[in-house]
Amino acid sequence: MQGISFSERVRIDLCDRGYDILIGAGVLADPGAFEAARPGPDALIVTNTTVGPLYATRLAQVLARRHPKLRTLALPDGEQHKNWHTLNLIFDELLGNGADRKTTLYALGGGVVGDMTGFAAACYMRGVPFVQVPTTLLAQVDSSVGGKTAINHPLGKNMIGAFYQPQAVVCDLDVLKTLPARELSAGLAEVIKYGPIADMAFLDWIEANIEPLRACEPAALAHAVKRSCQIKADVVGQDEREAGLRAILNFGHTFGHAIEAGMGYGAWLHGEAVGAGMVMAAELSRELGGVDAAFVQRLRALIARAGLPTRGAVIDARDNAGRYLQLMRVDKKAEGGEIRFVVIDGPGRAAVRSAPDALVRQVIDRCCAG
Amino acid sequence: MQGISFSERVRIDLCDRGYDILIGAGVLADPGAFEAARPGPDALIVTNTTVGPLYATRLAQVLARRHPKLRTLALPDGEQHKNWHTLNLIFDELLGNGADRKTTLYALGGGVVGDMTGFAAACYMRGVPFVQVPTTLLAQVDSSVGGKTAINHPLGKNMIGAFYQPQAVVCDLDVLKTLPARELSAGLAEVIKYGPIADMAFLDWIEANIEPLRACEPAALAHAVKRSCQIKADVVGQDEREAGLRAILNFGHTFGHAIEAGMGYGAWLHGEAVGAGMVMAAELSRELGGVDAAFVQRLRALIARAGLPTRGAVIDARDNAGRYLQLMRVDKKAEGGEIRFVVIDGPGRAAVRSAPDALVRQVIDRCCAG
Repeated sequence: MQGISFSERVRIDLCDRGYDILIGAGVLADPGAFEAARPGPDALIVTNTTVGPLYATRLAQVLARRHPKLRTLALPDGEQHKNWHTLNLIFDELLGNGADRKTTLYALGGGVVGDMTGFAAACYMRGVPFVQVPTTLLAQVDSSVGGKTAINHPLGKNMIGAFYQPQAVVCDLDVLKTLPARELSAGLAEVIKYGPIADMAFLDWIEANIEPLRACEPAALAHAVKRSCQIKADVVGQDEREAGLRAILNFGHTFGHAIEAGMGYGAWLHGEAVGAGMVMAAELSRELGGVDAAFVQRLRALIARAGLPTRGAVIDARDNAGRYLQLMRVDKKAEGGEIRFVVIDGPGRAAVRSAPDALVRQVIDRCCAG
Repeated sequence: MQGISFSERVRIDLCDRGYDILIGAGVLADPGAFEAARPGPDALIVTNTTVGPLYATRLAQVLARRHPKLRTLALPDGEQHKNWHTLNLIFDELLGNGADRKTTLYALGGGVVGDMTGFAAACYMRGVPFVQVPTTLLAQVDSSVGGKTAINHPLGKNMIGAFYQPQAVVCDLDVLKTLPARELSAGLAEVIKYGPIADMAFLDWIEANIEPLRACEPAALAHAVKRSCQIKADVVGQDEREAGLRAILNFGHTFGHAIEAGMGYGAWLHGEAVGAGMVMAAELSRELGGVDAAFVQRLRALIARAGLPTRGAVIDARDNAGRYLQLMRVDKKAEGGEIRFVVIDGPGRAAVRSAPDALVRQVIDRCCAG
């Protein structure tokens, strides 16, 4: 096999828990990309029934020398399976095959596989090593980076989880070529997010490159993934456990989670809900005086060009805003029943704020389809 | 209410995760004992159906000023309930009542309540504060201290869990008066453990005070709990996540876990299994040259005087030793299928060793009833 060099390497700086994100075309087939992973006889690739057939054999080949007793487990695909039952399939596999505290887990898939495998690694025997190998754009730019792991609870998304850092994140841009267009768009929602909260020059760049990004052009993807990871690494390095700053990464997510929960997990892709949620959060920001109408319109236009919905779902025919408010009160940022919104406090600058229910209702009524 | 002063205070030194263990008669009714807990409107006392009726009201009264919206949840009692289903009762209660990331959990009960409440606190919204209020001797001297939390899996004890430190541990010696004699004896197993692994002078003291301890004399209990916590604090302070040294605290536990799993969780109390397990581990230590027969006999006699079994259970009529070995291979200390035993390497000094199966079989055959 010819040597493949990484396009990019981004460091997550977290004292004794720091690690690198490796970004490049073809890195999945490069043994050097996995050097940071702990060697040991025993390892498990956790993937799903969609990604597994495409890439599990390639990853297994490259890991075979590191882990002679390597196995693969394919979970059912989809957000609706991000629950305790599916998590237990991982534990059953590990315990049934004598996995010990030195067994490494490799998460090969999108955000659901990464979140569940990371949480399994956090809990199995109180913690085993794991490596993220994200295969969706959304996972490469957001969910695989920063150590948030979780499963859903019937009453709320990502309610049960842990902060648990991987040993490395390996982002192969080539695998995005097999990603359905709808999922690529969903990933672009998280890329776009980094603009308004942290870097307006990056927003300019995304506007200028949205077509190359949707066409999976390697250079455009490489820059989008790298810059997204840099911003996330900077935020997570300052606030690993979301005591404050890290919450800004949830721009659009409070409204978005209400859409996902209200429609039933899996009906909207997470990124789609975040797309519409960012428009709602931008509208709220405008009401609170942080940005003007032109800013909201600019963001809405870009979200539409990314192939994402810009209007929220109607999740309750009788009292739509009331249902949104009810669902948003179980958001993890809420405190004492008061919803905490990530708003734009000025272009490129985010803040966490509460807002009067009446104002939030207006925004929801204005921003939802129907 | 008159002021109550703590008999003892032991510090667990863990950088930003350090905390105090408060030990004394009546501290459960002293608001000062809970000063280290984070104030906030919302809190949940998690207890069980046995301990709750005895002490939950007393604890709720003392916490009412700190947490105006205090609730109590009583779980079913017993090791057989230390599973995902029961853990979910805690999550359901929290989510159903709008608990947020600042909600504090209080674990009022023995090791099962403490382990499950701690794990729930570790996972709920990726971590909320919690306080241990152990009501059994075993929990006061061992399980509530050091941040090990877990639930059982059908294939192994404490297989799913987290290292997650409480904000404080409050040990009220008075509550031990209502502890059944069998449970007091089970707690003495963990007290006795600290002698051979770390402090032979403490073993001398236990031998001289075993009757006062079994009679719940306050001064004897205070010293036993304090010295046990000091030794545990010292070990945990050096090795929080059991990279090495901490494993010595599992003296007797490898054999003991096999008895618990082999008999079905709950048939033997954990401390009873550790009692018989320490005799087996001492026999193995003698075979490996760490101690002499007189040492084993001395330990066996003390375990018997504590009211504990000194012979292991027969868990398989056809191949008892084989079944022990099979169960011990899923112990968390095992590596690559090789069982790692905590042995006494000389009085007051423990080490982690592997041993030939044939030798372990001999020890099991010699030490099991039948």
